[in-house]
Amino acid sequence: MIPVDPDRFLADLHHLRSFGASGVGKGVVRQAYSDADIAAREWLAAQYAEAGLQATIDPLGTVWGLAPGKSLLVGSHSDTQPEGGWLDGALGVICGLELARAGVQAGLPISAVSFQDEEGRFGVMTGSRVWSGRTTLADADALRDSGGVTFAEGRARMAHMVTGEVDPSRFSGFVECHIEQGPWLDEAQEAVGVVTDIVGIRDLTITFSGEQNHAGTTPMHRRKDALKGMLRFQSLIEERFRNVVTPQTVWTTGHVDLHPGSHSIVPGRCSFSMQWRDGDAARLDRMETIVRASAADVAEETGLTLEMSQMLGLEPVPMDPALQAALAMAAEGQLPGRWRKMQSGALHDAASLSRLMPVAMLFVPSINGISHAFAEDTEEADLVAGLKVLADAVEAIATA
Amino acid sequence: MIPVDPDRFLADLHHLRSFGASGVGKGVVRQAYSDADIAAREWLAAQYAEAGLQATIDPLGTVWGLAPGKSLLVGSHSDTQPEGGWLDGALGVICGLELARAGVQAGLPISAVSFQDEEGRFGVMTGSRVWSGRTTLADADALRDSGGVTFAEGRARMAHMVTGEVDPSRFSGFVECHIEQGPWLDEAQEAVGVVTDIVGIRDLTITFSGEQNHAGTTPMHRRKDALKGMLRFQSLIEERFRNVVTPQTVWTTGHVDLHPGSHSIVPGRCSFSMQWRDGDAARLDRMETIVRASAADVAEETGLTLEMSQMLGLEPVPMDPALQAALAMAAEGQLPGRWRKMQSGALHDAASLSRLMPVAMLFVPSINGISHAFAEDTEEADLVAGLKVLADAVEAIATA
Repeated sequence: MIPVDPDRFLADLHHLRSFGASGVGKGVVRQAYSDADIAAREWLAAQYAEAGLQATIDPLGTVWGLAPGKSLLVGSHSDTQPEGGWLDGALGVICGLELARAGVQAGLPISAVSFQDEEGRFGVMTGSRVWSGRTTLADADALRDSGGVTFAEGRARMAHMVTGEVDPSRFSGFVECHIEQGPWLDEAQEAVGVVTDIVGIRDLTITFSGEQNHAGTTPMHRRKDALKGMLRFQSLIEERFRNVVTPQTVWTTGHVDLHPGSHSIVPGRCSFSMQWRDGDAARLDRMETIVRASAADVAEETGLTLEMSQMLGLEPVPMDPALQAALAMAAEGQLPGRWRKMQSGALHDAASLSRLMPVAMLFVPSINGISHAFAEDTEEADLVAGLKVLADAVEAIATA
Repeated sequence: MIPVDPDRFLADLHHLRSFGASGVGKGVVRQAYSDADIAAREWLAAQYAEAGLQATIDPLGTVWGLAPGKSLLVGSHSDTQPEGGWLDGALGVICGLELARAGVQAGLPISAVSFQDEEGRFGVMTGSRVWSGRTTLADADALRDSGGVTFAEGRARMAHMVTGEVDPSRFSGFVECHIEQGPWLDEAQEAVGVVTDIVGIRDLTITFSGEQNHAGTTPMHRRKDALKGMLRFQSLIEERFRNVVTPQTVWTTGHVDLHPGSHSIVPGRCSFSMQWRDGDAARLDRMETIVRASAADVAEETGLTLEMSQMLGLEPVPMDPALQAALAMAAEGQLPGRWRKMQSGALHDAASLSRLMPVAMLFVPSINGISHAFAEDTEEADLVAGLKVLADAVEAIATA
């Protein structure tokens, strides 16, 4: 194993949470480009430099610790949700720091990174998406946070720290460590998960329109109640999804807007979100066919009119087989029988980078599956176990 | 028939719509205590006085045209919805004016009235509810409109016009004419409807709470999705209401609030309104039992927690049999076979007054069932037919 230092690793992880510590448990408030985020990135750059890496801050505010020549990149993001946990992306960032440091000592080329705005104060994985060419910088600059601040204004706050661009071709692959953000490893008392793929997402808004009318004087059989369209749609897809989905598939209606929204008025319009996720693009397609057919069937049955928004979607991202194999071998070596292969239901910077290089992810348990909350936590023994699996895997990859 | 003048009646009805004319079709914007409303009430008081009635404006802004001694009261309200039709309450007010005028000529004691704030800028039927003792003036004064203006501030705008209180004991009964606000008479090509009763209302807000969670990483069988509670509730009541309701019963969910309302978050809380209306208090009770049991069953089935708001309700109001009989006899006399008995699914001032005196209502057709909208309209021949039925009925009642 390359010479990682678990105590130093844990100390750094706790030090990072001092930037924006919420004062509630181990919680952290460190949104992209906040004072706490900028201070954390300044500290991180100093750690990279001290480790003998070339500390670089790119125009997006992503912080790099670069090993010379072609290297393996390890990292994640250090910005948080408005009410964030102390691990989330920070865990992957400090794993990257510790592994790159060990790489310097062992003479293995390992670089480290903390991408900017993964949590989407402005967009979704803005830093890694722009860097990997999935979004242009001009498009990103126009994004606004919920308070109206633009991404351009945000990154201008770090402009004095920028040292240059980083060329993707210098990296041979990317490995990201993260908490699982679900209950699987924690419930099974397992120590790590080797990610097989990041699920794809399809997301759209469905709108049924009928006739807004008086809730007292409009008889039931004369109503064109838009809510009924939503109710019927939900029951249809529940039935039709049954033979298509797996236990890993999820689908959610998280937003409903009923117009005009009065107790005494039969609703004339119902808009609602429909989002589904799965690791298999063909299954996402089959579900899309069901969603579209069910909405059309409801409109025909009920006489409501139907509108569908443009489909937003991200295709599933399979992890690189060779990197996955290295992680699996390291996990079985360190933790025989205490690891599993698993899917990521959430997006991560690795998904952005998958276009440019082989990528892989390692998960550690999340106590009670809590994430994006101050109560998020993981046993320190599990954090260290994850670090050691990574160390073995990264060594195997870098010496291959 | 007492000597009503259809041309004068139609001219007055058109003149009244000049106060607050919207400029869109025959539509009117004349909310309680607006400049247009106050000007219309000033004009109406002058018409009452000119007809030889004692014009009185009470502290609420309700305008009265009083016949001497014990009299039959005829009228409605002249305030409108924010986007109102030209008939609605105005029709009943001008019917009252014309009948009271004819009463003076015929020597029959008929008084007229235009109640204030029936449309609920501040409350619901505020003028008639306070006058009939269902709400105290102090409670009404504290009501606020959507812009924060109090009822007290509203009625202060008419304070200089107030002439005194009106004692309910001077009236032997109340007859109100109104458009049907539904499609029944218009579809059947019938001319008038004699109202049998005003339906009762029960209204409450049901809240299911579960667990807000990540829509990507929370597997379906681990979710406590609050929306699922609402969906299950709706399907349960649909099934359980089947053997309880009649074709006249209505029930509505017009408001849904899903928290936090994001595409990517399993909703942790779903609040929704549930309102039902029927003319039979026992049926309202049976439906309430089903609503409460279904919500509790859903909570038990799904593990969601359940909260229910306080029940808001108004009991059904039967129309007085003798007044109904007089209207029915007059309808059959004027329009043989072209009238029906029917329920009112909407509330009217007659419901407020039912505690104090016998009340009855006559409906005229509403073209395409449109009401509370600029497009609301009724054929003038139907308006005149309604006036003549009222004239015969009022004569019969006043001479009984």
